[in-house]
Amino acid sequence: MSKAELIYQMLLEDKVTESKGSITMNFLDVKFKLNDKSAIGNILQEWLGHWMERKGIYFRPSHNTQEPPDYYLSESDEKDLLELKTFDSSASANFDVANFDAYIRSIMTKAYKIDCDYLIMGYELNNGELEIKSIWLKKIWEICSASNNLPIKCQVKQKKIVNIRPTTWSSKRNKFKPFDSKKEFILALDKTIKSYSFLSETISKDNWLKEVSANYKLTSGKELFE
Amino acid sequence: MSKAELIYQMLLEDKVTESKGSITMNFLDVKFKLNDKSAIGNILQEWLGHWMERKGIYFRPSHNTQEPPDYYLSESDEKDLLELKTFDSSASANFDVANFDAYIRSIMTKAYKIDCDYLIMGYELNNGELEIKSIWLKKIWEICSASNNLPIKCQVKQKKIVNIRPTTWSSKRNKFKPFDSKKEFILALDKTIKSYSFLSETISKDNWLKEVSANYKLTSGKELFE
Repeated sequence: MSKAELIYQMLLEDKVTESKGSITMNFLDVKFKLNDKSAIGNILQEWLGHWMERKGIYFRPSHNTQEPPDYYLSESDEKDLLELKTFDSSASANFDVANFDAYIRSIMTKAYKIDCDYLIMGYELNNGELEIKSIWLKKIWEICSASNNLPIKCQVKQKKIVNIRPTTWSSKRNKFKPFDSKKEFILALDKTIKSYSFLSETISKDNWLKEVSANYKLTSGKELFE
Repeated sequence: MSKAELIYQMLLEDKVTESKGSITMNFLDVKFKLNDKSAIGNILQEWLGHWMERKGIYFRPSHNTQEPPDYYLSESDEKDLLELKTFDSSASANFDVANFDAYIRSIMTKAYKIDCDYLIMGYELNNGELEIKSIWLKKIWEICSASNNLPIKCQVKQKKIVNIRPTTWSSKRNKFKPFDSKKEFILALDKTIKSYSFLSETISKDNWLKEVSANYKLTSGKELFE
């Protein structure tokens, strides 16, 4: 069992989806229970750190908040990577999987990040009462899919690709199913890169896949497509 | 006294800069005081709403989180606009004044937003203890300045302008002083637009200032440059 799987199992054993929590602010004689969802992701991330500490789970927080992972679960920087994603589960999952530019750039030199584990929490916040309704442990290709407009579902603003967005991975009625494998996901990224007019000058359309592939072998000791 | 000035005065009378607060999370038998700064801006915004309620101050929160204002302080959508900005005052002010694209686009049709009031809180968070160290009430031109690279200081990523960034308005040693007037600020935006290679196709370099000026007169009943 991987370290991420252990954490996931321990959270389930702790009945994370059957518990209620709250966040209370007290300042200048005004005391209230937080009911705005904007801060929940950051707060749950800090909470997870405290929870892991309490359970005696080894981890190091990452100091780069722009790229996965949020946590290193071993002394290695190249394996046992954990990223936490949260979303309001009264709507569909709408978090940013990753910034598209930053992600394709990052895995050119840190290809091992492709194997990062994603711990995903769907929460509800009602009248200051926080509940984790669902929890998943996924690989990035298991939460991404194709879309009508692009080989990989992304948020697009003024024709520019901004963020990779998740598919509704748990729905069976969804037109676009999650990718079947790491290979499918990487090939979808490559296809998107090849057809993208606004690609950053510092990334080569022709060499991206080759570079990621070589770097993956170098940094993780395995073939990218086994 | 404007409604924003009244709020600012009441906060000072409430000794906002001499008080200590905290945010406590309690979930799954893990209780801790929040010490991560990422969520403080959102939490202080929710706090301000509760504080205004308690003081009997009329306000309506805005439902558009992408653009100023955060709050409407009267029944008008076009005046008495309040935007809250917060930053960790152990470093320099590094919040995003506004997304550049969104701002220049927004004031073409809602030019009255130029006059929005900015309530700015510089906080410190140490060991879960929150203090507001300083508080300012400013107009946008009083917190922006020129910079070495652009007529208006912005965050630039891969040659593209992303966000308008604040100057260190309270420092006398600062090379770039805040703009002296609304006019200086608008002209600096116009100059930036005219020389910017990546301007969105839907904004005209030649007509931007004219459109803002006409819209300002239409929506606020005053001349943009008096």
